[in-house]
Amino acid sequence: MRTPSAPTEEPAARELASRIAAGDRRALARAITLVESTRPEDRAPAEALMAALPRSSIESLRIGIAGAPGVGKSTLIETLGLHAIGQGHRLAVLAVDPSSPVSGGSILGDKTRMAELSRAPAAFIRPSPAAGRLGGVARRTAEAVRLCEAAGHGRIIVETVGLGQSETAISGLVDLVLLLVPPGGGDELQGIKRGIMETADILVVTKADGAMLEQAGRTAAEYQHALRLIRPQPGWAPVARTCSALTGAGIAELWAEIERFQEALGPAAMAARRSEQAVQQLSAEIEEELKAALGRAGLGDRLAALQREVAAGRLTPRAAARAIVAELVKPAAEP
Amino acid sequence: MRTPSAPTEEPAARELASRIAAGDRRALARAITLVESTRPEDRAPAEALMAALPRSSIESLRIGIAGAPGVGKSTLIETLGLHAIGQGHRLAVLAVDPSSPVSGGSILGDKTRMAELSRAPAAFIRPSPAAGRLGGVARRTAEAVRLCEAAGHGRIIVETVGLGQSETAISGLVDLVLLLVPPGGGDELQGIKRGIMETADILVVTKADGAMLEQAGRTAAEYQHALRLIRPQPGWAPVARTCSALTGAGIAELWAEIERFQEALGPAAMAARRSEQAVQQLSAEIEEELKAALGRAGLGDRLAALQREVAAGRLTPRAAARAIVAELVKPAAEP
Repeated sequence: MRTPSAPTEEPAARELASRIAAGDRRALARAITLVESTRPEDRAPAEALMAALPRSSIESLRIGIAGAPGVGKSTLIETLGLHAIGQGHRLAVLAVDPSSPVSGGSILGDKTRMAELSRAPAAFIRPSPAAGRLGGVARRTAEAVRLCEAAGHGRIIVETVGLGQSETAISGLVDLVLLLVPPGGGDELQGIKRGIMETADILVVTKADGAMLEQAGRTAAEYQHALRLIRPQPGWAPVARTCSALTGAGIAELWAEIERFQEALGPAAMAARRSEQAVQQLSAEIEEELKAALGRAGLGDRLAALQREVAAGRLTPRAAARAIVAELVKPAAEP
Repeated sequence: MRTPSAPTEEPAARELASRIAAGDRRALARAITLVESTRPEDRAPAEALMAALPRSSIESLRIGIAGAPGVGKSTLIETLGLHAIGQGHRLAVLAVDPSSPVSGGSILGDKTRMAELSRAPAAFIRPSPAAGRLGGVARRTAEAVRLCEAAGHGRIIVETVGLGQSETAISGLVDLVLLLVPPGGGDELQGIKRGIMETADILVVTKADGAMLEQAGRTAAEYQHALRLIRPQPGWAPVARTCSALTGAGIAELWAEIERFQEALGPAAMAARRSEQAVQQLSAEIEEELKAALGRAGLGDRLAALQREVAAGRLTPRAAARAIVAELVKPAAEP
């Protein structure tokens, strides 16, 4: 099945893909905008682009960074990113933002974030998307990650911006998750969603400097103790570390820990994990496609009405599901 | 849209529903078998039954019990259940079993489990389903819970049997989750899936008797400390307790803690949580219905092939999703 516009699109997709592979930063930025777009007319070109993309030959590492607003994600990424570049890596920084109006990144403004890192030729920083512009957040970020890898960026940082599902969605997008927490006890953890602590591979206590230095060390020890009670992934037991973006203390050690994770897992386990993530993304994509199909069939309001009936206990989930699916799908051929 | 057999089914459904409401245990058992059935011909009667069910007037509490095989779930449920009955409650015990061939419950055999509790007139114990008989596990269990409530059982225990997704699925079915752990440190936690600890409302260290008494107390204190680092739900901070099904120590206190949870949350918050769970179940039901529709349309193999392509990185999740959905849904009317 070809869309009518496909023949003219494919040369354009191939050209854009080869410019990305050649390291053209503006082409990369344009491509990410294309895959993130929710405009229906951008869908076919975006798909053609992803299909035209050569498989990246570099061995990449995808690093998720989660944490509540104010914990110091941007400053840590700047400091850690400059260290990574100093080690010879090419780095890309992307953001997952569930279109929250209280997005920390958007409030600060993209231009003031990571000022030094954004000027480095080996770094590509994608400004966080404006609130409300994104559709299925995690789905598009996965494609943006692959575009950055095709452009030769071997280290990808995916940052959660704002609160919400992004914190738990991030573990489906990356190879390892860094969870940033402030010095202090559990009371300060109000911004962290339930569920994220157990997905953290490295827990980082930030702002370990000045008056907070000692408190940060105690906090890390406490978390290290708590992490011991959580079942580890095969091949990696979660660790808690401290660092300071201000003094640089602990930054080189944190980067070494990240690379130790990559070695500990090994390429086979990491490839298996990525395959599993892709299959999970397929489920999410099918759900999105079906939602779009419901909309096209004029059934969006019908689904909302059924959801209200189910929430009120007037209809069972099973009966509601059968009703909506029967209206959507082609009738099965009678045997 | 009515199925051809509907007119004759509805009186049967109404009769079964009223026998359940009258406390007929065999009718309740038959009804659960009906909603758990994966036979296509049972679907319409099951739906008719659920629709005919009167809304339960009792204020129920749904208690999930999770924990690795061998931790002592059955013996705790027996002891705790007898205590609840002694308090004047009518109790039902259901099991969530993800059709695992290594199911602990099935190995022991249903008849030997909870021998004393199963003879109590105020208790209804549903044997755990045989491996492989169930389709969508959590979905059917939600309906079985509502059947037990309609039969006047105000306290429902949903137990995870075997390993697998049941441990994380259970939190979508119940009002609170008890996570059972053995005395000892994190090394013994290998059977607990990542993600379950953060959903536990009450953590119970079992086997707190004899030589393990002191160790159990230390373990509970350690977990209590770790739970402090996890963000609590509004209205309830998770607690760690010890108990012994052998000596009965801590059983009355554990039941009091469960009732304290119910009071702390309050009826409004609990109703809101159940509404949210029902809407989530609708999503799961839609997914199941669509999978069934794919099967009917002969697209099951096509989906499996697309999943393999996606896992191997030869196709993007987006392109695969669009392909399968286009084959399944009715074409949209052209504008």
